[in-house]
Amino acid sequence: MPAHRTPYPFLKGHGTENDFVLLPDHDGTVHGDLDPARVRALCDRRAGIGGDGVLRVVRTAALDGGVAGPGSPAPGGSPEWFMDYRNADGSVSEMCGNGIRVFARHLVEEGLADPARPIPVATRDGVKTIRLEGDLVTVDMGPPALLGHTEVTVGATRWPARHVDMGNPHAVAFVDDLAPTGPVGALHEPPGHDPAVYPAGVNVEFVVRQGERHVAMRVHERGSGETRSCGTGACAVMVAAAEADGLGPADGAEYRVDLPGGTLTIAWTPQDRVLMTGPAVVVARGTTAL
Amino acid sequence: MPAHRTPYPFLKGHGTENDFVLLPDHDGTVHGDLDPARVRALCDRRAGIGGDGVLRVVRTAALDGGVAGPGSPAPGGSPEWFMDYRNADGSVSEMCGNGIRVFARHLVEEGLADPARPIPVATRDGVKTIRLEGDLVTVDMGPPALLGHTEVTVGATRWPARHVDMGNPHAVAFVDDLAPTGPVGALHEPPGHDPAVYPAGVNVEFVVRQGERHVAMRVHERGSGETRSCGTGACAVMVAAAEADGLGPADGAEYRVDLPGGTLTIAWTPQDRVLMTGPAVVVARGTTAL
Repeated sequence: MPAHRTPYPFLKGHGTENDFVLLPDHDGTVHGDLDPARVRALCDRRAGIGGDGVLRVVRTAALDGGVAGPGSPAPGGSPEWFMDYRNADGSVSEMCGNGIRVFARHLVEEGLADPARPIPVATRDGVKTIRLEGDLVTVDMGPPALLGHTEVTVGATRWPARHVDMGNPHAVAFVDDLAPTGPVGALHEPPGHDPAVYPAGVNVEFVVRQGERHVAMRVHERGSGETRSCGTGACAVMVAAAEADGLGPADGAEYRVDLPGGTLTIAWTPQDRVLMTGPAVVVARGTTAL
Repeated sequence: MPAHRTPYPFLKGHGTENDFVLLPDHDGTVHGDLDPARVRALCDRRAGIGGDGVLRVVRTAALDGGVAGPGSPAPGGSPEWFMDYRNADGSVSEMCGNGIRVFARHLVEEGLADPARPIPVATRDGVKTIRLEGDLVTVDMGPPALLGHTEVTVGATRWPARHVDMGNPHAVAFVDDLAPTGPVGALHEPPGHDPAVYPAGVNVEFVVRQGERHVAMRVHERGSGETRSCGTGACAVMVAAAEADGLGPADGAEYRVDLPGGTLTIAWTPQDRVLMTGPAVVVARGTTAL
């Protein structure tokens, strides 16, 4: 390894093939205010380790009020751990539903949290509570917002779409065929959307029915292209599917959502919260000087 | 990490962004005859570590004549080290020019080879000799074969192409513009070629002139799609460019070849050998139970 930097520890893990480089930095002394260039180097899939983002693992007590980003960590009486999430391009992000499952799995594997109890984790989007049960991890993704009706297009094909907000904007379109050889296509380009509805772009989900309370989806994420999994996208899809089935939060419905990278179970609770349950694994650990 | 397997060591490195998972297995006791499913799991860019291939690092003395693959390692008096190269799909491959540079870099960093001398490495394509000088590593890629003239196509555009064989087949097309927005396009699909000339498919290189003995290229590798770098492709491009410039092996010419993943220097020697020089780095090391 290049000798100009001191090697520091990392881990790599994923949830439904949404993958992350974890950086243990418990006291904030390894990385300080993490350099965006280092995040890009770590996430580079050929020249680096590769990942959709970086999860810095740091104690809230070490934050010293100095967390860069749009939100702030939890106030006093805060959880022990803060998930400092960065996108692969080095930018700061508030939350990541697949990432926080991997984060909690890592805490438990290292003996830093008790898997028998709910695990609170501070994020820039507030405190999230995670529950582990065997191979599965559940995270409360908060309340959904069912907004208007809109349209999405691929080439000459046009579908009606439901506008759902999960903290970020989604357009959910029910289609007859998800195949890359069908009308949805290879998704090499972003689907068309109404810029008046989505001035900052949109994540577009294409959904087919697989059975009762069971759907399959593909997703095109703004800025990332098609991905193997999108946690908020799966939540938006479940809420749109439940609504189409005449169900609301009071019904406490649970849906299976198949994504290219795996399966998530999404529940919409009477408290109008969306709970996402899925796998989360750490697959490698080591050191790097990137 | 999953507890069902004993963690074993790995490293990750790349040469011009052609990247590899290295598996130290000096005495052949860690991996034995490496399982193709494990290679695929390691090379998976989301669920695994990620790489274009795996380089198992094993002593020739440990091979016991039992190397799976089309060729055999060096005969008696063989080098100390054998590069057991596997493609990301788990299949066995004879040689990889970018991979063997990373392999040699690893041997030197671990104190397993002397960087002050040529380093012989056994491969399924025979013994290769590697030389290190600072950040650069040179490998003898063997003699080129300049074969016939052919054509390649992208959509409605057609270019003449030179058929060069570097142990594997290449079609080298000189174009005016490499941009993905130009006639060469995004290369999401394989370029068209003459199946009578290339019955087993072909690696297609698109080349622009950048200056005297300086070219830039993009490559579509059969079975892999567009890649950031292709060692044999860069060699084929250099030989085709030299021929177009009226040069042959006797001239001992050296060309700079820019690829998306970095720069290689290719020399065609009076002994009719092609020498490829480029960077090679190891960026991470650790353990995995994949």
